[in-house]
Amino acid sequence: MMQKNTVIEKSTYVPPEQLPVEIVERKGTGHPDYIADSISEAASRELSKYYYDRFKRILHHNLDKVLIVGGQSAPRFGGGELLQPIYILISGRATTEVIDTDGSRISIPVGPLLLRATRQWIKQNFRYLDPDEHVIVDYRIGKGSSDLVDIYQRKQDYPGSNDTSMGVGYAPLSETERLVFEVERLLNSPKVKRELPAVGEDIKVMGVRKGDVIYLTIAAAIISRHVSSTDEYLAVKEQIKKLVIEKATDITKRKVEVYINTGDNPAKGDKGGLYLVVTGTSAEHGDDGATGRGNRTNGLITPFRPMSLEATAGKNPVSHIGKLYNVVAFNAAQEIIQLDNIKEAYVKLISQIGKPINEPLLAYVAINADDATLSRVKHKAEEILENHLDGINRLWERFLRGELMLF
Amino acid sequence: MMQKNTVIEKSTYVPPEQLPVEIVERKGTGHPDYIADSISEAASRELSKYYYDRFKRILHHNLDKVLIVGGQSAPRFGGGELLQPIYILISGRATTEVIDTDGSRISIPVGPLLLRATRQWIKQNFRYLDPDEHVIVDYRIGKGSSDLVDIYQRKQDYPGSNDTSMGVGYAPLSETERLVFEVERLLNSPKVKRELPAVGEDIKVMGVRKGDVIYLTIAAAIISRHVSSTDEYLAVKEQIKKLVIEKATDITKRKVEVYINTGDNPAKGDKGGLYLVVTGTSAEHGDDGATGRGNRTNGLITPFRPMSLEATAGKNPVSHIGKLYNVVAFNAAQEIIQLDNIKEAYVKLISQIGKPINEPLLAYVAINADDATLSRVKHKAEEILENHLDGINRLWERFLRGELMLF
Amino acid sequence: MMQKNTVIEKSTYVPPEQLPVEIVERKGTGHPDYIADSISEAASRELSKYYYDRFKRILHHNLDKVLIVGGQSAPRFGGGELLQPIYILISGRATTEVIDTDGSRISIPVGPLLLRATRQWIKQNFRYLDPDEHVIVDYRIGKGSSDLVDIYQRKQDYPGSNDTSMGVGYAPLSETERLVFEVERLLNSPKVKRELPAVGEDIKVMGVRKGDVIYLTIAAAIISRHVSSTDEYLAVKEQIKKLVIEKATDITKRKVEVYINTGDNPAKGDKGGLYLVVTGTSAEHGDDGATGRGNRTNGLITPFRPMSLEATAGKNPVSHIGKLYNVVAFNAAQEIIQLDNIKEAYVKLISQIGKPINEPLLAYVAINADDATLSRVKHKAEEILENHLDGINRLWERFLRGELMLF
Amino acid sequence: MMQKNTVIEKSTYVPPEQLPVEIVERKGTGHPDYIADSISEAASRELSKYYYDRFKRILHHNLDKVLIVGGQSAPRFGGGELLQPIYILISGRATTEVIDTDGSRISIPVGPLLLRATRQWIKQNFRYLDPDEHVIVDYRIGKGSSDLVDIYQRKQDYPGSNDTSMGVGYAPLSETERLVFEVERLLNSPKVKRELPAVGEDIKVMGVRKGDVIYLTIAAAIISRHVSSTDEYLAVKEQIKKLVIEKATDITKRKVEVYINTGDNPAKGDKGGLYLVVTGTSAEHGDDGATGRGNRTNGLITPFRPMSLEATAGKNPVSHIGKLYNVVAFNAAQEIIQLDNIKEAYVKLISQIGKPINEPLLAYVAINADDATLSRVKHKAEEILENHLDGINRLWERFLRGELMLF
Repeated sequence: MMQKNTVIEKSTYVPPEQLPVEIVERKGTGHPDYIADSISEAASRELSKYYYDRFKRILHHNLDKVLIVGGQSAPRFGGGELLQPIYILISGRATTEVIDTDGSRISIPVGPLLLRATRQWIKQNFRYLDPDEHVIVDYRIGKGSSDLVDIYQRKQDYPGSNDTSMGVGYAPLSETERLVFEVERLLNSPKVKRELPAVGEDIKVMGVRKGDVIYLTIAAAIISRHVSSTDEYLAVKEQIKKLVIEKATDITKRKVEVYINTGDNPAKGDKGGLYLVVTGTSAEHGDDGATGRGNRTNGLITPFRPMSLEATAGKNPVSHIGKLYNVVAFNAAQEIIQLDNIKEAYVKLISQIGKPINEPLLAYVAINADDATLSRVKHKAEEILENHLDGINRLWERFLRGELMLF
Repeated sequence: MMQKNTVIEKSTYVPPEQLPVEIVERKGTGHPDYIADSISEAASRELSKYYYDRFKRILHHNLDKVLIVGGQSAPRFGGGELLQPIYILISGRATTEVIDTDGSRISIPVGPLLLRATRQWIKQNFRYLDPDEHVIVDYRIGKGSSDLVDIYQRKQDYPGSNDTSMGVGYAPLSETERLVFEVERLLNSPKVKRELPAVGEDIKVMGVRKGDVIYLTIAAAIISRHVSSTDEYLAVKEQIKKLVIEKATDITKRKVEVYINTGDNPAKGDKGGLYLVVTGTSAEHGDDGATGRGNRTNGLITPFRPMSLEATAGKNPVSHIGKLYNVVAFNAAQEIIQLDNIKEAYVKLISQIGKPINEPLLAYVAINADDATLSRVKHKAEEILENHLDGINRLWERFLRGELMLF
Repeated sequence: MMQKNTVIEKSTYVPPEQLPVEIVERKGTGHPDYIADSISEAASRELSKYYYDRFKRILHHNLDKVLIVGGQSAPRFGGGELLQPIYILISGRATTEVIDTDGSRISIPVGPLLLRATRQWIKQNFRYLDPDEHVIVDYRIGKGSSDLVDIYQRKQDYPGSNDTSMGVGYAPLSETERLVFEVERLLNSPKVKRELPAVGEDIKVMGVRKGDVIYLTIAAAIISRHVSSTDEYLAVKEQIKKLVIEKATDITKRKVEVYINTGDNPAKGDKGGLYLVVTGTSAEHGDDGATGRGNRTNGLITPFRPMSLEATAGKNPVSHIGKLYNVVAFNAAQEIIQLDNIKEAYVKLISQIGKPINEPLLAYVAINADDATLSRVKHKAEEILENHLDGINRLWERFLRGELMLF
Repeated sequence: MMQKNTVIEKSTYVPPEQLPVEIVERKGTGHPDYIADSISEAASRELSKYYYDRFKRILHHNLDKVLIVGGQSAPRFGGGELLQPIYILISGRATTEVIDTDGSRISIPVGPLLLRATRQWIKQNFRYLDPDEHVIVDYRIGKGSSDLVDIYQRKQDYPGSNDTSMGVGYAPLSETERLVFEVERLLNSPKVKRELPAVGEDIKVMGVRKGDVIYLTIAAAIISRHVSSTDEYLAVKEQIKKLVIEKATDITKRKVEVYINTGDNPAKGDKGGLYLVVTGTSAEHGDDGATGRGNRTNGLITPFRPMSLEATAGKNPVSHIGKLYNVVAFNAAQEIIQLDNIKEAYVKLISQIGKPINEPLLAYVAINADDATLSRVKHKAEEILENHLDGINRLWERFLRGELMLF
């Protein structure tokens, strides 16, 4: 067996629940940063599928720089319109050309693939954002070429690291973390969209726990065509609040205070006083977004927890450590805490230049458990992590099927 | 005095020096993410100065979404050329129009200011990146208008928070952190540029400490016109290594291993085997960059330490909490550790919606000190933090003079 | 009656039929310049309708600068694919804001209207050019604002000229001109598309008459999915030739030689030897187009005849002389030659600054007829032209319905 | 000697002086269409020089689609500022890659060359248009590759025509034509710029002759920093008028009426009432420009004279018939009229597909002279034209030196 440099130790982290304060954020489906991440990843997936279908390999690419430039809109009670489209620029690098065995050059239809992926993602995730008239999609992709002979000769199971990079993961989520995550998922669920169609896709949830009180601040874009007055708007906010509090009751016994669209000035109504949108996203009126600026691999932003700054979205799923190690770290941590009596696990992976990606410089696990438990599970935990590492070269299949959460 | 909600407690963090492993990164001047951050901030500064000169106020803007799209280059020993310019897109929002007291509209020359700031920053920070021929600068800025009457009536000393946001800071840096920071500063110092002009501006330093060994992996772009052969290139790497090791000796007694441009394949020479650049930045050959994807407020990326994900660069310096709280937190932590016998301080600030920005929901300080020290300095630390908070409304002057490090 | 400054004289032009040589060109539906003209005009039409629906007036705009930047494609027998989309940039000026009677500002959704018009035009005119994946549409439109009060107060039936501009028209077409026009129309007719689906939309016909021989050089893009071999391709060319010769026989007794895709090199097949396209337009592989660079108002380019250089497409149809005078001149000439015994008529209109647009500085008609006829029809011709001039303020209705040919 | 298919005949054109009306236009240096033409040509020249220096051949390119998108400005008496930069998009095709004899690929630095050419042209032709802050230059160029072996094997003196194309020229200019041309040249002369620095570069002259009166309508952008009041502005207009009338006296005995900036509304002063600019060009406030939309090869737009619609600017100077034939036609016409007793000459050239470019399908010359003169000069005229045709393969040298007027 390959050298994994695994170290399992007792955690020195105080679990977040025991700290006096927590702060957690989740940017939901319609948030400009989430859109950027999603388009990065959808584009990478579309491209990967094309590469795989044609060459039986996923060729090099990195589409982790998508920029969403906000447009301009005029929401109005019962209607409204988009005035200036959202501009989306996909940048990055891709293999645009493959040199065939006979020396001829096969060009990859990168542009059409990116346009398709973007439009499809928008169609599948928004009800009122029209990719035909509300969005301009452009791209600037650095060219790259690959030699087909080289591609097929790479027999090696695990590509080598050519940079120092890292991944970090932990489990389980704290109550506040879970709450923030679940609230956004709830508000963007088909059920809520059906029952409360006025709730837009752009939902940002910020959770601050101070002692035993959790303050949930929710920015929820409200679809202007679905509310006809300030009163209706305020009623929608009340219904959201009710839903959130119900959900909170399932998750925590702590006191939860919910604040929705705190910047509202109801007296001004639809003349700028309320958080109304035409399309579902705040990108319609000037909010910008960028890949890598939103949620981390576990769907959350947790400034007091270890976090990788690396964008996972848009990177190629076969060799990019910044993408793979973060996913492995979270997956392994989640499996490790299934073991008996473990309160918390942190996994940190650091790559080793020149070594296969399943042989990190360090695979470090910090486990919060009593000493007896720790010595009992140590070997098992090691095994779990090493299995995840060895499975890294099949992760791409799950990325392509969209099974792995990245943000 | 205003309510600051300050809580001073004993730190539960294990100092990084005592952990088995650390990982720290710094992206230097010529790194695409650093360029993006720098242009965001330079543009915000230029715009702020214009607003201030004309209206005695810094008007609303947020330029924290700059995208750097890599170009294409052909470095060659003793020369080389840029083939395709780097494309820079500045996006965000600004006050483009001010409504005068007589109802007339004053337009702000946002575009020319952004172009000027960008070009000047490039000229001041690169020797071989020519803003005339190597770079295309474009912008897409959302329009905003302000009423001059309103602007002057805002008498309030401290603007109100209209979102939940946070800042985090700590002090001191660990040895590894300091080493990573200082090594980049050294390699981008005027002295090294003079003595070793081949060293490009794009320096990325990654430090991994495993027990008592620090592994420094340095990606240092080498200016192709300054090396005429693979031997010369390798000699430059040796000289860099020597400089780094000298610097390391000043900072740490730990063993330091230095790896430079580990992906090199000297046999291929300037046909893609070495890390050569024409202009000083890897953005010339396809590496992209984006605001907020690089260093945090203390100039480092420290995944195992508390970090805000917020981009500080490009945001307006008078009311944007994400910018101000991070700076305040770092500054306060640095001052607090000047107090006797304090080993480490962490400062976390969380804003309170609807309250002035100097009155956070929570101002939390975790101090690593023995109990006696802690009770002695507690009040002093509180005072320090509160002074920093109250000074928040004058911070903009220092931003405008470029005195505050943000990344 | 208003002063029209009409002058009717005997023509000094030798009719083209009597000249030793003629040269005539028509760029058909799929030609990049035709696409640019069409999108300019479709966008102007969509915008005009919006203005009219909302304000009962067509507000100022000028969209006569559309640029089509060619993409990249890989046509192959029986298939092929687009590699890089066509980039379309719509530029110009429009009224983006209307100041309401209460001083509030109504924003016009210019961007979404332009995107809609462009996509619709593509869908209606191409079978294989997919606006979703083959095209990127962007725009850069100068802002303008109008005061609603002013708009409604403009009671004047005819707006004033604020520039010297001109229009020119003639009738009838020569045989060669008619032939060139009809051949393109035939090849882009639904019937031919049905019977010979391989014939793409990008048809350029150049007719050169030298004495009594007409040389027709036709560039006809062939849809790669509809031909499976060089032989099939050549057979399609033969069928086109047959159709063209049939059509020619209807129009002229002169000898007609037909050359199709003269640059073909059949030996190279679909490796660059034939004029194959995936989408129907040569814009797919690098041919660019621009508004105003294609056909004149009568659908032809006739370098030896009087021609206005003004682009008619995209200009507002209520006050832009460069658009209106060219249409009036052609329409009037066509009506004038209906009068008995008239061989040819040329109409030239020059605007007079500061005067209503139906009162030109000069309305000049040159008629080719014997003296007796001329003196007989003179008054009638004058009446015809003046009626057309007085009808100029209702022409916009026909533009909006798309009834008037402009290119 | 090669077959030139030259036909010399007696002209059937009535000389413009004898027609009741003439209309002539010239767009001067700072006009957006002139800027577009100039940048197309400057870019082609810069690229051609690079190709020639490196490969001793001018490689294929066509940069005849430059778009100038107007910005926004706020001119004010004694100052003013640019609010939004002018956006320049250079599109077209170029040889971006040359395949060396050893199969390796040499990339051409197309982007930097285009940026350099554009900036240099602006610097050399404007005093107040700052390429650093007033202009954004971008490009979208279709890629092409050439094989060096092929390039060197093309021994043929004259490349073949692969399309039907034409050129047309005439001489001499009529008085009105000369007047229009000279007036613009005067107003953009170094002398006038020195003596009357308020005169901007954007000068458009429209000449209409009706009988024996020539109406000159001049749109002359006035530099706002050089006039401090409406009175000064009006005084500048008077001085321009004086200069123009002096010049007119040199050229014609006809009555000349001069109208300058006829749209002015002096009562509104610098609040939109006058034609003031900050930079010298109307492109600063929304006027757009495009290659090929301005002057023809003789520097004029003459709708009643034969005109080619082909843009000459930006095309490659070694094989593009649309460029070369127009220049040859004008040059030959000018030389032909030097022959004794010739009043007027028109030259029309039509290319022959598959034949070398110096062997047209038809080289037609119409000469206005009495029969005796005509039969005397016929052979000489033929010789002149054929010499020009045979010299076509050396014209590029003069294009590269910028010696040939194209617009």
